[in-house]
Amino acid sequence: MTTPDRSSVHPAWLPDAATTFLCGRTVRVDGTGPLAQTVRAEARRAGATLVHDGAADLTLRDTAAVPGGEGFAVGQRDGGLDVAADDDAGLVHAWFHVVRTGGATEPGRHDPAHALRMLDHWDNVDVHPVMGQVERGYAGGSIFYADGRVREDLSRVEQYARLLAATGVNRVAINNVNVHRREALLLTDDLPDVARVAAAFRAWGIRVHLSVSFAAPMVLGGLATSDPLDPGVQDWWADAVARVYATVPDFGGFVVKADSEGQPGPFAYGRDHADGANLLARALAPYGGTVHWRAFVYDHTQDWRDRSTDRARAAHDHFAPLDGRFDDNVVVQVKHGPMDFQVREPVSPVLAAMPRTRLALELQVTQEYTGQQRHACYLGPWWSEVLRFRPWGPVDAAACVGAGADIGAGADGGPTVSDVAAGLGPGASPRVVAGRGGGVAAVSNVGDDPFWTGHPLAQANLYAFGRLAWDPTLDATGLLDEWVSLTFAGTGDEDGTAAGRVDPVVREVVHRVLDGSWATYESYTAPLGVGFMVRPGHHYGPDVDGYEYTPWGTYHFADRDGIGVDRTRATGTGFTGQYPEPWRDVYESLDTCPDELLLFFHHVPYTHVLRSGTTVVQHVYDTHFAGADEVDAVAAAWAGVESRVPDDVFDRVAERLAEQQRSAREWRDQLCTYFLRKSGIPDARGRTIY
Amino acid sequence: MTTPDRSSVHPAWLPDAATTFLCGRTVRVDGTGPLAQTVRAEARRAGATLVHDGAADLTLRDTAAVPGGEGFAVGQRDGGLDVAADDDAGLVHAWFHVVRTGGATEPGRHDPAHALRMLDHWDNVDVHPVMGQVERGYAGGSIFYADGRVREDLSRVEQYARLLAATGVNRVAINNVNVHRREALLLTDDLPDVARVAAAFRAWGIRVHLSVSFAAPMVLGGLATSDPLDPGVQDWWADAVARVYATVPDFGGFVVKADSEGQPGPFAYGRDHADGANLLARALAPYGGTVHWRAFVYDHTQDWRDRSTDRARAAHDHFAPLDGRFDDNVVVQVKHGPMDFQVREPVSPVLAAMPRTRLALELQVTQEYTGQQRHACYLGPWWSEVLRFRPWGPVDAAACVGAGADIGAGADGGPTVSDVAAGLGPGASPRVVAGRGGGVAAVSNVGDDPFWTGHPLAQANLYAFGRLAWDPTLDATGLLDEWVSLTFAGTGDEDGTAAGRVDPVVREVVHRVLDGSWATYESYTAPLGVGFMVRPGHHYGPDVDGYEYTPWGTYHFADRDGIGVDRTRATGTGFTGQYPEPWRDVYESLDTCPDELLLFFHHVPYTHVLRSGTTVVQHVYDTHFAGADEVDAVAAAWAGVESRVPDDVFDRVAERLAEQQRSAREWRDQLCTYFLRKSGIPDARGRTIY
Repeated sequence: MTTPDRSSVHPAWLPDAATTFLCGRTVRVDGTGPLAQTVRAEARRAGATLVHDGAADLTLRDTAAVPGGEGFAVGQRDGGLDVAADDDAGLVHAWFHVVRTGGATEPGRHDPAHALRMLDHWDNVDVHPVMGQVERGYAGGSIFYADGRVREDLSRVEQYARLLAATGVNRVAINNVNVHRREALLLTDDLPDVARVAAAFRAWGIRVHLSVSFAAPMVLGGLATSDPLDPGVQDWWADAVARVYATVPDFGGFVVKADSEGQPGPFAYGRDHADGANLLARALAPYGGTVHWRAFVYDHTQDWRDRSTDRARAAHDHFAPLDGRFDDNVVVQVKHGPMDFQVREPVSPVLAAMPRTRLALELQVTQEYTGQQRHACYLGPWWSEVLRFRPWGPVDAAACVGAGADIGAGADGGPTVSDVAAGLGPGASPRVVAGRGGGVAAVSNVGDDPFWTGHPLAQANLYAFGRLAWDPTLDATGLLDEWVSLTFAGTGDEDGTAAGRVDPVVREVVHRVLDGSWATYESYTAPLGVGFMVRPGHHYGPDVDGYEYTPWGTYHFADRDGIGVDRTRATGTGFTGQYPEPWRDVYESLDTCPDELLLFFHHVPYTHVLRSGTTVVQHVYDTHFAGADEVDAVAAAWAGVESRVPDDVFDRVAERLAEQQRSAREWRDQLCTYFLRKSGIPDARGRTIY
Repeated sequence: MTTPDRSSVHPAWLPDAATTFLCGRTVRVDGTGPLAQTVRAEARRAGATLVHDGAADLTLRDTAAVPGGEGFAVGQRDGGLDVAADDDAGLVHAWFHVVRTGGATEPGRHDPAHALRMLDHWDNVDVHPVMGQVERGYAGGSIFYADGRVREDLSRVEQYARLLAATGVNRVAINNVNVHRREALLLTDDLPDVARVAAAFRAWGIRVHLSVSFAAPMVLGGLATSDPLDPGVQDWWADAVARVYATVPDFGGFVVKADSEGQPGPFAYGRDHADGANLLARALAPYGGTVHWRAFVYDHTQDWRDRSTDRARAAHDHFAPLDGRFDDNVVVQVKHGPMDFQVREPVSPVLAAMPRTRLALELQVTQEYTGQQRHACYLGPWWSEVLRFRPWGPVDAAACVGAGADIGAGADGGPTVSDVAAGLGPGASPRVVAGRGGGVAAVSNVGDDPFWTGHPLAQANLYAFGRLAWDPTLDATGLLDEWVSLTFAGTGDEDGTAAGRVDPVVREVVHRVLDGSWATYESYTAPLGVGFMVRPGHHYGPDVDGYEYTPWGTYHFADRDGIGVDRTRATGTGFTGQYPEPWRDVYESLDTCPDELLLFFHHVPYTHVLRSGTTVVQHVYDTHFAGADEVDAVAAAWAGVESRVPDDVFDRVAERLAEQQRSAREWRDQLCTYFLRKSGIPDARGRTIY
């Protein structure tokens, strides 16, 4: 299959072929807001005939019944689909719902589970000498900035906004949480440019946020302090926020990384994070703005010799005592795990510890620790597992990880992480309920790469994030299927629905590549939840001891006898005690701790027998060989879609898979060699270990 | 003691106080060359009275007896010193000889052992995004370049040239051997600026060299090839060299890093290094220029899984077969050890393998692997040991390392490395004898830091290098004493000699800090010759496995049972076979291999008993604790010179010693922990290991 136009960017999940089923149909859009105009333009783009009254094949109505509402109800009228949207943003979501479901749109009510569905961009205005322009970005430069300023041409941003709207995302923070000197100016000097970006997103119902430095009153204002209790500081923020809203009336708010990895924060003044967050919240409150205050606070200058300090404990230690102290418009944004976006971590206990605080679940779409968009790694199943996790049980006795359970506040089995993020956790205070919690946020994986995400298949992660943020009950594999149906629309025969118009071979192969890719990545990287073991700094590729003697708090404590971190209450750091029942006991005991988290919670001998029946060291050998073999099989499978997908997509994926094969072998051989050298225990299957 | 002038740069070993013994004395300089003018200006600067005829306290005569000669003879006439210099360069060396010896200049003849005494600067014109402006530089930016071009103000270069001349250095290569695009232009567009730099050095008898890219005909000339056998390439180089000499008539020649760590070279065309070097040599020959062609060629993309490839073998494998093929004006520049400037390596066998080739010994004054000028590490003893090493024996049975032997071609005990570099090795061909070998070259440790070298005591390394290059028989501790006498002149009472004018407490403390500092650094870093174990990339601080699974060829192969690289002929890589007798057998056998090189040549169990009587693992524990303790003692000793040396010197050294204490403890604890975890063998003395 030849590539339509190599000079243009890839259409991602909105190729024209995805909407051909609407071509020639009649569409009526009732509504006077700007988003009604957006939907009319979409309909025109799809080749539909716009009608302004009377019956239509598809009618979308802005009922204005719920101000700010995003939900909609699909019904039938006069032989056509009739969609009643709560407000004009609902029109957009309804439109893309129809696009996704193609000719098979069923009647029913649709509301987002989370009010805030946000992407955080770690984009710098300047190119950072170490981190590049997009920190932890693996898809080229920034779509927002070039040549040290906001881009003049925002056409990529406009396309991006449309793609995000189609997934359900409604908030975007446009700059790195590590706010350098140049980037700080977005809050002041660059406001006219920020307004241009905001306009591009506004057309799709998305509000823009900025990351700000807690030291902005000093850096930008020339004040001598950033003390949150200082009236001059409070005035400075009030004035700064007033200027922002004068320029961007629907500005979303601030994202703040404070007292974290060297960023300034309230600790410098003997204040706590509630003091810090409320300072900004009070400046934003008159305008309806929100502070996303990150809970990623830990000692990044810890001494590896100090076995009593446990980074996993840090967020809970810092934030749980502050529950109830945060203002209504503060969202405390909590990474899904207690460490840092590893391929496997337990769910952060902070998510179960702050019922009187609006909590956002923070995920990472950019694949910092999951192959950096050189490896295929579909993260939908991982996020789904986190969203469905029940912090208060019951424990799924079979899987012992909470995965696979039904979710939703009304479902059996108790509240989930998603419920907490939606403000529906147990004991949620009125503030939390009223604010509908903090929603879901994630670090974007997009750059100015022609495929948006470097690895074309990494688009599926961005798509799945938005969809899960809207509806966390969706099945991750089903979402992948949805993404395939849209992205590869037009590769099959033309039977009138998007799904039917995908070449079944393409569908099968993409599933073959991605369905198990997260598990595969886990199998050849750090084993059994121990985490890290990556090259320091850039975090790509294996280095088992790379972080072992560093100040970062990420250790595995492997010696000649065993490995793992004892985080029990009985003999370890006591981290298990941060969980409510049942998990505090499930994780505490070797008898009940799930295999995949064993080394996160326990230090065990290499000869320890897993629940799976194999020893720890043999598990390392087996999984690493199996993982590398699986990547070979996946690469072979991809060869089957040559000429069935556009050449540029085929080539790019093939090139990435080749690197994944090389890298998986490197992981396999380094890990196996490391553990053989250390344990002296040979592989029971006699494979080559160096 | 207060600092004279904080805004000025430190005078290093030429403070005004070093020449006060000449103040008011009469000095006569006979000679018409420009260097005679330089010496007259020096005499005036010292406060001497210049006389133009008749008797003088000090007479320096350019006899023009040996064109290009640098030697001189000290005698007495009319109650004054009378120095007869071979040519005008000899006047400069004679002058500084008198300065060094103060009032105690003895009659005698002085000639440099090595004709080429060279410093290589790894300075970039631009600031490299990873390596900074000075690659492996630890003393700030470049004294040659600023703002992307050669500095307008070359006053620092002029001061530097004077300092170098006082040590005996007579060649300087002014740019990094990794020649990036900007730096390539020094050969063409920047020649007028190079000429200004050359003029600054010429005033002190020093000739300037340039590092060039082997791909220059393509990069600069737009040719399609750099093939050394291509007539167009040959013509291009001939033209380029002609332009250089038209601008800089006494240009020294080229330094080339080819087919090394990614730099281009003749291998791309199926040619060898003799073809490559001779290409440049033939362009330079008409003008008397020299090619310094580096033998640092190895596979830097080797697979760590491949145990058969041994980086230590590489230079010998590549170059020894080419012996006799290099032109008269080619110097093959050989790193002193087979790896890369580690704190302990055997002497490179290449130095014993190429009697028909002019060989230069390459040392590293910049402390890449020896503490990066944050640690005090006086390298004179290390270089002295290398220069005195006898590649053909006899073996010093006591020390088994060849150290401490008398050297010089006429001395008993056989030829030394210094003899080889001087063209006096066994079987030296007429070409080598006539060219006086290749001399000594070293990477400079100087930058635009006010103390020149970051750590003020690192000046001693630069001083000692120049002096040893002139006279390798000098005792390293004596040289340090010489450096103290000059550098700290004026801190003691005024008895008329430089030596006497140094505060004895200062002298004692500097010796306490530096005399054993190389051994101390070795004791707390990589043990027993195994090398590396540093953080990849920047090479500072410990990371035992940092290079273990990388493509760089620097492995230690530690497992739970033992450590070290088997480089024997019997069971290992066969590297020992690259040495002549007696070393090929001394190193081959565990019974005779010196302790300090044990792990370079052998893989042994942790329980192996060293010749010292202790086990390998206990040796690691003992030396690391002792080394860290010694740094504490040294830091305490330095406190004793507060108010006895200038405050800025005191403070800077104190600050660096504090970092050295921290770093030495880190090395101690990481290394001990690593080996305890791996071996399971506790410290016999029960010290704290983490």
